[in-house]
Amino acid sequence: MMKALQYVEVGKAPEVREVPIPEPGPGEVRLRVTAAGACHSDSFVMSLTEEQYGQFGYPLPMTLGHEGVGVVDALGAGVTTVAEGDAVAVYGPQGCGRCYSCTQGRENYCPHAASLGITPPGLGCDGAMAEYMVVRDPRVLIPLGELDPVAAVGLTDAGLTPYHAVKGSLGRLGPGSVVVVIGVGGLGHVALQLLRALTPATVIALDISDEKLAFAKESGAHYAFRSDAQAPEQVAQIAGSRPLAAIFDFVSNQPVADMAWSMAGFETDVVMVGAGAVKSSLGLLAQPWGSRARAPYWGTRPELMEVLDLARTGQVHVDTTVFSLDDGPEAYRQLHDGELRGRAVVVP
Amino acid sequence: MMKALQYVEVGKAPEVREVPIPEPGPGEVRLRVTAAGACHSDSFVMSLTEEQYGQFGYPLPMTLGHEGVGVVDALGAGVTTVAEGDAVAVYGPQGCGRCYSCTQGRENYCPHAASLGITPPGLGCDGAMAEYMVVRDPRVLIPLGELDPVAAVGLTDAGLTPYHAVKGSLGRLGPGSVVVVIGVGGLGHVALQLLRALTPATVIALDISDEKLAFAKESGAHYAFRSDAQAPEQVAQIAGSRPLAAIFDFVSNQPVADMAWSMAGFETDVVMVGAGAVKSSLGLLAQPWGSRARAPYWGTRPELMEVLDLARTGQVHVDTTVFSLDDGPEAYRQLHDGELRGRAVVVP
Amino acid sequence: MMKALQYVEVGKAPEVREVPIPEPGPGEVRLRVTAAGACHSDSFVMSLTEEQYGQFGYPLPMTLGHEGVGVVDALGAGVTTVAEGDAVAVYGPQGCGRCYSCTQGRENYCPHAASLGITPPGLGCDGAMAEYMVVRDPRVLIPLGELDPVAAVGLTDAGLTPYHAVKGSLGRLGPGSVVVVIGVGGLGHVALQLLRALTPATVIALDISDEKLAFAKESGAHYAFRSDAQAPEQVAQIAGSRPLAAIFDFVSNQPVADMAWSMAGFETDVVMVGAGAVKSSLGLLAQPWGSRARAPYWGTRPELMEVLDLARTGQVHVDTTVFSLDDGPEAYRQLHDGELRGRAVVVP
Amino acid sequence: MMKALQYVEVGKAPEVREVPIPEPGPGEVRLRVTAAGACHSDSFVMSLTEEQYGQFGYPLPMTLGHEGVGVVDALGAGVTTVAEGDAVAVYGPQGCGRCYSCTQGRENYCPHAASLGITPPGLGCDGAMAEYMVVRDPRVLIPLGELDPVAAVGLTDAGLTPYHAVKGSLGRLGPGSVVVVIGVGGLGHVALQLLRALTPATVIALDISDEKLAFAKESGAHYAFRSDAQAPEQVAQIAGSRPLAAIFDFVSNQPVADMAWSMAGFETDVVMVGAGAVKSSLGLLAQPWGSRARAPYWGTRPELMEVLDLARTGQVHVDTTVFSLDDGPEAYRQLHDGELRGRAVVVP
Repeated sequence: MMKALQYVEVGKAPEVREVPIPEPGPGEVRLRVTAAGACHSDSFVMSLTEEQYGQFGYPLPMTLGHEGVGVVDALGAGVTTVAEGDAVAVYGPQGCGRCYSCTQGRENYCPHAASLGITPPGLGCDGAMAEYMVVRDPRVLIPLGELDPVAAVGLTDAGLTPYHAVKGSLGRLGPGSVVVVIGVGGLGHVALQLLRALTPATVIALDISDEKLAFAKESGAHYAFRSDAQAPEQVAQIAGSRPLAAIFDFVSNQPVADMAWSMAGFETDVVMVGAGAVKSSLGLLAQPWGSRARAPYWGTRPELMEVLDLARTGQVHVDTTVFSLDDGPEAYRQLHDGELRGRAVVVP
Repeated sequence: MMKALQYVEVGKAPEVREVPIPEPGPGEVRLRVTAAGACHSDSFVMSLTEEQYGQFGYPLPMTLGHEGVGVVDALGAGVTTVAEGDAVAVYGPQGCGRCYSCTQGRENYCPHAASLGITPPGLGCDGAMAEYMVVRDPRVLIPLGELDPVAAVGLTDAGLTPYHAVKGSLGRLGPGSVVVVIGVGGLGHVALQLLRALTPATVIALDISDEKLAFAKESGAHYAFRSDAQAPEQVAQIAGSRPLAAIFDFVSNQPVADMAWSMAGFETDVVMVGAGAVKSSLGLLAQPWGSRARAPYWGTRPELMEVLDLARTGQVHVDTTVFSLDDGPEAYRQLHDGELRGRAVVVP
Repeated sequence: MMKALQYVEVGKAPEVREVPIPEPGPGEVRLRVTAAGACHSDSFVMSLTEEQYGQFGYPLPMTLGHEGVGVVDALGAGVTTVAEGDAVAVYGPQGCGRCYSCTQGRENYCPHAASLGITPPGLGCDGAMAEYMVVRDPRVLIPLGELDPVAAVGLTDAGLTPYHAVKGSLGRLGPGSVVVVIGVGGLGHVALQLLRALTPATVIALDISDEKLAFAKESGAHYAFRSDAQAPEQVAQIAGSRPLAAIFDFVSNQPVADMAWSMAGFETDVVMVGAGAVKSSLGLLAQPWGSRARAPYWGTRPELMEVLDLARTGQVHVDTTVFSLDDGPEAYRQLHDGELRGRAVVVP
Repeated sequence: MMKALQYVEVGKAPEVREVPIPEPGPGEVRLRVTAAGACHSDSFVMSLTEEQYGQFGYPLPMTLGHEGVGVVDALGAGVTTVAEGDAVAVYGPQGCGRCYSCTQGRENYCPHAASLGITPPGLGCDGAMAEYMVVRDPRVLIPLGELDPVAAVGLTDAGLTPYHAVKGSLGRLGPGSVVVVIGVGGLGHVALQLLRALTPATVIALDISDEKLAFAKESGAHYAFRSDAQAPEQVAQIAGSRPLAAIFDFVSNQPVADMAWSMAGFETDVVMVGAGAVKSSLGLLAQPWGSRARAPYWGTRPELMEVLDLARTGQVHVDTTVFSLDDGPEAYRQLHDGELRGRAVVVP
């Protein structure tokens, strides 16, 4: 038996429970989890009504945790490409593994995953908030090497998601470009670091508290302003005559999206990374010419390798607060109540 | 004195008038116009109310015509890079010529043009529907070589605009990709040819009449369907499990935009090329992951060269109906009433 | 027992032999071969001296054939991602499957394959010229769907290699570009088709016989000339003032390489695809400014999917001559003696 | 009359002479020079024999200096796009201004410049080492804004050339990549800064003296080694199993080129930036698969804007030693004798 942090009943807080240690089937791999990350999207799932949760088709109980790192513990039949003892990170947005997207490692856009019932660990099947977890294919295990598990686990989502978002706009982020990041939380503070590491752009951060603005500066922002009515004018002062190259919106509610579009100009990328839905005006008579509205999702398998490489060379790190598995429910409470800076990491 | 087709009074049809032959100032060039194209955006401008027209800041009277080709007729002081007798096409979406965008020939996105009062000929200053026209800089004159003026003039907008739209999605249009073009008019029928010339994609056209669907097939579409309620299902049958690579919407009203989004999937480019404004739902919980909503405008200066090269090698042509300058008002009437197939070209 | 066409003794012709049907180990897959292709690189391997062959580290006997398609016949332990009866193509240039290159499907450039002893089937381990073959991982099996095995098998190398070569220069092959293909053999005639399907470039073929020049025209070349002393001048006439965008050299001996460089200009890609080694002058004072000398190898895993998609849409096909397995030695003889047009395919 | 530093007689040191202040013709612009840079390529030109110099077709006397910044002093007829008093940098590798390359600002690869007799200032016509200079078109004047002339002048070549070289390999310089720069002189030390500003790559510098290695570290190299027989092994230690992404060779003689190729692996870009000519082995059996040998020349017009933007944001600077115009001959002597660190700048 082992401990697992599970979502058991819709609307209730998750619980630490004793469950059987899972066995890897043919082609599968069992990990001993060394760290698991807590994410706003877990909170989002636990905020759904019974009806909505049912529409997602998730099971109950379900072990939480779509950010996980661990050590290979047992191999299912036929597994030859990893060995017991390997330290690995789990690539979350798993696809079918065989289609055109997956063959390039772009499993996050696999058009077959949903119909095949393939979901990320912790978002539709048992996740990483447990002493052990089973992954369906060694392909999704990325070598961790000497990276510290606690420091690395957040890279699998809080690192990978902004990385993928930034990479999709890289062609517009050359010298002289100016970029805005809205929302300096678990993902946004990594976006700031990534923009500094990957581009020569001037980086402006917007958020609502002095604490967040200070955090933005520590994370590499050249400028940090309150995201209030004055923000567009302050941004325009810095950008000058050249339109913003990109706006990364980690909040993605209607007022923030409206503010983003109000700052956009010719060829601005408006990139919505937060889990939201808004209404916006599009078309040649409504949006700035050449602008693009994008909604990238998580990241690709090779991109997770790239993010780990950035961590190895000291160019990105995720701020973390560590909890034991028994304190996992408390981690989610603090996350929900906005008491955390950076990422909550559970160490089983 | 010369004849010019001018918009004289808001709400009235344009008139052929006798006006002075313009003189090129320092750095300017005068052309003897050999062909000028009539475009829906001219009709759009002439449909504005007095108040709206005033907001655009356009003069009255204004010679129409933002598609023009001609022969260099007179040089202003200091012009050395073109010579009298050169056959040239006029690049319309002119910028300041000096900024970062313009230096790459991307004048259509010049952030300074508007504030400097620089507009395309025929859309804010006198255009090509006249015996002579003056252009502000020889830079905007693209060598025409042996191309026939009547056949070539439509390439400057009806060719360039879909070319620029397609080029922005080229990275998604590889082997096995499927793409949809909605609206097979003056621009759409060129888009079909361009997609066939530039990509190995399977091309589906949607429009509302049998005549248009036949035109689509002649223009290179592999499939052509009525853009009705069955269209998304017919498109899905052809696309199979792989999401559409791109949807080019040359209509850009709300019902068409809604249909476009209903067909979009992971990483689909939704490209609005028509002169419209719509409301759409964006964000991770609303638009397909990885999709992009773009609104490209006209095209760049090197792209006009590329389009002319495609015409030279027989890979693109614009369907035309020819009118004399005196019949120019009739050309706009037929355009407005949807009686034209392809492009109306006025030969002074 | 089954029949296999094996290279048995250095310097001798290959022989058809009775060998045991191989068993798939854990994670492996056995195919019933439906077609296998014969390639010049097999001839090259069989032309090596005993010492050279030893340096390559290849075994003896070795079943030939690095182009193979088949039907899944038996699954090793733990294989879940393919099923018996699946029609598949074998991706040849296999890598470790786990590194950064392999994660993107770019296994042809895996830096670990050599040291791990991983080789393509038929080039270091038993290949496809047999009734059955075993592949080391279902990952390298690309769904074939309804494609005819005989028509498709050549796509795995004779199709994939020129595809990868062309793709690396795609950014230079826009409208108005002119490109030269030298050598219209098993790979070159596919390169011509690919250039027409993927680009709007004007395509010139060079070869040494009228028969080959006619073959070039049938394969899509706009122009075909003898590759003699006049060729550079004939090419220059067509290209005009604009430098060649790319030269694809499928011969890659010294005289051909010298001719290629003599035709190169600013920003020309000189792409050596043949199995050769030459000496050339490089550097700012020796090679045209902005030119690139490339030597691409085979192709990536997603690119094989792309090539199969081009075949499905009728945009590429490999000319073939069919032999039985018993006639396999004769196929290699005809290949070696230059008596074949297109590709020799062995059907077990 | 004004002072100018001119090359007067082949084989002799350049001299400061009194010459007439040049008048701008129609379409031309006269600058009052505020700084001019001395470059190894000037020394190269002055090292040519009479016969070689004649083959280049350069005039005598010729004012030196292809790096220049100044203030607009007088306008020729018809010039409207710059104004007296504008601070500008001169873009050197000027093209015809009208062809496809030039329209994109890629004038450095204009295929017409040579036949039209268009040369960079100071390399075929009078350059910037004078109190005044005339440029043939305001198009080649890039706004300097508040940048200090002495600090900025070296960016026009010593900055632009490595920038263009790096940019051509940018797609290979992602996270985890390792890159080598050989030669830490006037251009190499800027390349190091640029690699740090534009990429997350690990940067290794090779040169022959402790002083240069220290300079490399100050300029941003993560590692700096002597370019001796041990260098390839030291580099390999850092790169690990992954092949080098790129090698930038600022020396470009035979031994250095041979060393570069000895370090190259799959997909390495071997980029020769020095003014040299070497013999190398190419082709699939000779060069690493997927490697590219490039010889980029100077840079494009928009790239000069990008380099100036990097200077504005403090991401690149050129080390300089300042000389008066009268001391210009001494600047070239020190340059020739290797006594300078960074760039010699002449202030008229």
